[in-house]
Amino acid sequence: MEQTVEQLVADVFSRGCTSREVLEHVTGKWAVLALAALHEGPRRFGELRRRVDGVSEKMLAQTLQVLERDGMVHREVRSAIPPHVEYTLTELGAELAPQLVALIGFVEAAMPRVEAAREAHGERSAAG
Amino acid sequence: MEQTVEQLVADVFSRGCTSREVLEHVTGKWAVLALAALHEGPRRFGELRRRVDGVSEKMLAQTLQVLERDGMVHREVRSAIPPHVEYTLTELGAELAPQLVALIGFVEAAMPRVEAAREAHGERSAAG
Repeated sequence: MEQTVEQLVADVFSRGCTSREVLEHVTGKWAVLALAALHEGPRRFGELRRRVDGVSEKMLAQTLQVLERDGMVHREVRSAIPPHVEYTLTELGAELAPQLVALIGFVEAAMPRVEAAREAHGERSAAG
Repeated sequence: MEQTVEQLVADVFSRGCTSREVLEHVTGKWAVLALAALHEGPRRFGELRRRVDGVSEKMLAQTLQVLERDGMVHREVRSAIPPHVEYTLTELGAELAPQLVALIGFVEAAMPRVEAAREAHGERSAAG
């Protein structure tokens, strides 16, 4: 009898694949900004919160927890005086972050074209 | 009196900047998959829906509408028999999609490292 080798290949297009979950984690609203902020260097919780303008304490804590569990972010309690928590990118996170920074740069640079598309779209909708 | 020149620079880190909204659109759960699917070529609605496994008709329609308004996706009614709607990437969308495809590839390839991090995290949590 022939034996088939089970292939475990990650595929985000399959709804059951864990990789889709991880993709959602790293492309989440606050995760993209937090990872991009950590790309600038290690940050304390409060520093991150100020950088990621508009995030609540709860949402940022939750986001960092998920990213820590996925191995993107490292959390370290520094026993300085006063003690504080510092976040850094892991090796994996440091490979990911530049891609998100590039994506952010792309979107920021694309804004005039997005605005033009929105105006044209509004005109088409009005005409239709 | 000196005149200050108003600088309109997009900054996703500012909560009020429209670029953050656009970033959220293109990194949305279904948007990433839809844009990556369209990177493979023009697709009808039904084809996209099958490719983006698990998306509801309503969510896919909504996602495509937002991406069309932002100028990432072009929607065309083809007057074939039977008539059908075809989606393609715009020039802007075609610049964006490869970045998302790369991000997907990164996450898929990173899964063994993510799984290892999760296991280590579970052990630490159990020990702590």
